[in-house]
Amino acid sequence: MGGDFAPDEIVAGALTAAEELDVQLALVGRVEALERCLDRRSAAPENVEIEPAADVIEMDESPRSALRGRDDSSVARAVGLVAEGRAQGVISAGNSGAFMALSSVRMGTIPGVKRPAIAITMPSRNGWRVLLDAGANADCKPEHLRDFGLMGSVYARHALGIEQPRVGVLSIGEEKGKGNELTKAAHELLAASSVNFIGNVEGRDILADGCDVIVCDGFTGNIVLKASEGVAEALVRRLGEAVARNLTLRLMAPLFRTALRGALTQFDYAEYGGALLLGVQGVSVVSHGRSNANAMRNAVRFAHRVVESAVVEHISAAFGERAELPA
Amino acid sequence: MGGDFAPDEIVAGALTAAEELDVQLALVGRVEALERCLDRRSAAPENVEIEPAADVIEMDESPRSALRGRDDSSVARAVGLVAEGRAQGVISAGNSGAFMALSSVRMGTIPGVKRPAIAITMPSRNGWRVLLDAGANADCKPEHLRDFGLMGSVYARHALGIEQPRVGVLSIGEEKGKGNELTKAAHELLAASSVNFIGNVEGRDILADGCDVIVCDGFTGNIVLKASEGVAEALVRRLGEAVARNLTLRLMAPLFRTALRGALTQFDYAEYGGALLLGVQGVSVVSHGRSNANAMRNAVRFAHRVVESAVVEHISAAFGERAELPA
Repeated sequence: MGGDFAPDEIVAGALTAAEELDVQLALVGRVEALERCLDRRSAAPENVEIEPAADVIEMDESPRSALRGRDDSSVARAVGLVAEGRAQGVISAGNSGAFMALSSVRMGTIPGVKRPAIAITMPSRNGWRVLLDAGANADCKPEHLRDFGLMGSVYARHALGIEQPRVGVLSIGEEKGKGNELTKAAHELLAASSVNFIGNVEGRDILADGCDVIVCDGFTGNIVLKASEGVAEALVRRLGEAVARNLTLRLMAPLFRTALRGALTQFDYAEYGGALLLGVQGVSVVSHGRSNANAMRNAVRFAHRVVESAVVEHISAAFGERAELPA
Repeated sequence: MGGDFAPDEIVAGALTAAEELDVQLALVGRVEALERCLDRRSAAPENVEIEPAADVIEMDESPRSALRGRDDSSVARAVGLVAEGRAQGVISAGNSGAFMALSSVRMGTIPGVKRPAIAITMPSRNGWRVLLDAGANADCKPEHLRDFGLMGSVYARHALGIEQPRVGVLSIGEEKGKGNELTKAAHELLAASSVNFIGNVEGRDILADGCDVIVCDGFTGNIVLKASEGVAEALVRRLGEAVARNLTLRLMAPLFRTALRGALTQFDYAEYGGALLLGVQGVSVVSHGRSNANAMRNAVRFAHRVVESAVVEHISAAFGERAELPA
């Protein structure tokens, strides 16, 4: 029921994914609205069911309001399916604060993880890279960043197939002594941890190929990602204007637009459905509010891949091992 | 003597600016090296002189090392010219940490300003906007961000000609209650201050037209600007590849490259020579280490404009007025 194009586009994307994957899907929300979406199909796939929920948490409600007395909201019911062991993953394009709060509280955090973090998966030249935290924790302590490094590493290894993920801390200046108080302290902790730590990475390196897991606080991560999207969009707009001003190029505009769209896709992180709340005891995928059917299809495929690669179990094991090490 | 292409490109750019502007320029550094650059010209402009300095602070030296026993370094002598009242502005493409430390200590900060900040001037659709701090202060307190708002406002009004500059704080989420501890507290202080405060701006808004002065801590500012440059470069590279793959578009490549370069210029903040250390008692322009002759010419033009618009005097007046207000 969440997101700008719910429920129509959400259901359409979920149905496409259901046809493609060996998966059982539950559509959680108002039965009437969901049935209306299903009725438009000649035959709804057999692996899709409706899980009723009468209430909806709106986009402008506080995360706190979702935690009390709203048990019949679609997002609470959907998270509940995972918490109760009836589902392994949950996806929402609705109120992300409410969704994250519910995921943390109802599923519980993995023992040893103090702060779940949003991991964004981005395409790189040779595969994928991950940045976390992309916005779950506006204020972080150094040990949170260290934990993000470990969670990101496990995720990159098992879900992205990167054997020895290189972990860097997003900072200013490449040298160890550069950064703010937070990143300088996190640098020390990460260097002493079990991850393959390569040191500081700078803002311009978030798209470079030297690092597989970039850790930062959720404030910095959120701003960097949104600024990147803004720059990519502005640049494309300016380019379009430049092309329109040139008579010869203008004739090529349709071809050019295709090339442009291809290049821009690489910066449309939402396209990959890839915001994952790491550190909770279940797979919790935070989709963009603007998600259309294709984005939702990708989100389901993504959640499926994360479940299949047992990321939650591997993170539990990694934090369990760490707890057993002598201090 | 500082920067990747010193002294040749630095001198060449300075000489071009000297020919164009009603300005007296001093080239500060090793006399022999500077004279060699001047000798290549048939006639050096009369408004250019050489100020001797035998020592050079290298790029990898700590800012602290520049403050003691290095009085004959080119950057110390150049900053000294302003501190002694013999010059009104100074430009360096060398070790920026050393340059900023010397500027703060030798020129002194404007009374009432606790932390000088780097202001970056960026082109907007209808003119210019400014972002500060872009890297002088990795860790900030809320009152620093409030002061950045006031300094940025005065700068935007007098140097950029924006009558009522709109000031925003870079944060996550548009609502007042969104952000990290720093921005939430800064929001309160800015709302109670004399600037035209419009609230939070998000990462994707740094290139939008709703805000003239964007304030943030130097860590966030530096990362956002570098990430933006990285994204613009990566996008252009991908576009170039997409064009190369398409036979028809490939024939148009030269035309296309021109359009691309035009659009990209807007994201090349160094092009504008525009990193200004606000809050010190003089005009201190921090040029990019990669500055070529054109960038240096722009930097001189920029410094000239800032001197002419009496930004330092106006900031002094604004902070003086604030001090006189009842608390």
